[in-house]
Amino acid sequence: MSCGKISIVGIGPGNFLDMTERAKNAIESAEIISGYKTYLKLIEKILVGKKIIATEMMQEVERAKISVDEARKGSKVAVISSGDAGVYGMAGLVIETILNLPEENQPEFEVIAGISAVNSAAAILGAPLMHDFAVISLSDLLTDWDLIKKRVKCAAEGDFVIALYNPKSRRRVKNIEEVQKILLEFREKNTPVGIVTNAGRADEKKIISTLENFLSEEINMFSLVLIGNSKTFVKNNFMITPRGYEEKYF
Amino acid sequence: MSCGKISIVGIGPGNFLDMTERAKNAIESAEIISGYKTYLKLIEKILVGKKIIATEMMQEVERAKISVDEARKGSKVAVISSGDAGVYGMAGLVIETILNLPEENQPEFEVIAGISAVNSAAAILGAPLMHDFAVISLSDLLTDWDLIKKRVKCAAEGDFVIALYNPKSRRRVKNIEEVQKILLEFREKNTPVGIVTNAGRADEKKIISTLENFLSEEINMFSLVLIGNSKTFVKNNFMITPRGYEEKYF
Repeated sequence: MSCGKISIVGIGPGNFLDMTERAKNAIESAEIISGYKTYLKLIEKILVGKKIIATEMMQEVERAKISVDEARKGSKVAVISSGDAGVYGMAGLVIETILNLPEENQPEFEVIAGISAVNSAAAILGAPLMHDFAVISLSDLLTDWDLIKKRVKCAAEGDFVIALYNPKSRRRVKNIEEVQKILLEFREKNTPVGIVTNAGRADEKKIISTLENFLSEEINMFSLVLIGNSKTFVKNNFMITPRGYEEKYF
Repeated sequence: MSCGKISIVGIGPGNFLDMTERAKNAIESAEIISGYKTYLKLIEKILVGKKIIATEMMQEVERAKISVDEARKGSKVAVISSGDAGVYGMAGLVIETILNLPEENQPEFEVIAGISAVNSAAAILGAPLMHDFAVISLSDLLTDWDLIKKRVKCAAEGDFVIALYNPKSRRRVKNIEEVQKILLEFREKNTPVGIVTNAGRADEKKIISTLENFLSEEINMFSLVLIGNSKTFVKNNFMITPRGYEEKYF
């Protein structure tokens, strides 16, 4: 029996103030930290003296295997994801890698939730998530584009507030345009759209636009795009989705 | 001009380890703390010596007004919500109350994101949120039941993982039964369903069941119910929604 352990840690948006104490403790007590280079850099202050497994983007499968192997051999390992490790993060891949091993070789593991991008962005924009919402990634690397479009359509039809992860990258620019077209079939042109780029980091940027015009704003792979529902409004540059108290109590 | 300020703070599931440092700082530096009694109790350790505005459930409108008024008069106020104040929490109501005042009377405010129930529950269940998901509250106090049902149907049709907030209370027991019926029109009987009650608290309880059988389990107003999508599976009592690496890389 080994006494290794693997913690799959969501570090939140990338500053220590928005990290939970549990996440910080797990990183500080680990001997080996693995993660995508850009995110490791955000927390390098607490990584001094630790063994680092840094990989490039899209090497998640390899990173999960190495991390699990180190824990199996007896090390305390922390695998980090920005935001919440449980939302499009490393949790699934690491747990699957562990559960695919023979039971006697499976290291102990835990998932530590972090503030996900949709929650960080919402706090910056005001209160856009006061009502039911859908979270959709526009990356079609691992998901059929047709399924993503279907989900956008269903979310639009259900009048959900919609959070778009991975809205656009240098190589993927058309998806968000198609999404805009679908949404315009269901929602008004002036539906509020919030774009938060680099939430919680030094170069944080908040934009509030409309469904008709938001594509003229800068959107990149560090952006989170939030589409309002039919009741979302903008006031003093804050985006608010009413919960319904107004109709009932005001 | 007053120098009061209001922080709308998500305290996470209710223990200090899962609270962010920013949330803790805001509470510690506030003179007045307002919140629902049950949630104030969870953090009473750091409330010593502060003025407390504790109200019962469903007095949110009054609590928001009193809190904003205190900030307007110059106090540092923290309004707390469990989970994320921006997700079915106090953020919207407090911001609306502020923005409805004449501009010269509006106190400064900030929203501090916390770990929302869907993220806490997911971490406990394994990795159910690795793919697109929809968050729906089953409380029909402020929302038409027909709209809620429509959203459940749209989310089911889009094969979203579905997180149900406020799934059931003593007075509201039928809604979750109707939801099950709708979901069974779109998903297999053996679709995994996770129920986490009192996440992150002393009496935390995790159950993994199926869409056909989950209603026989205890579900209350401190429960979060997570319905898997068509690819979600259970292994060693963990609930996992694959991201798609398997099909592409394994």
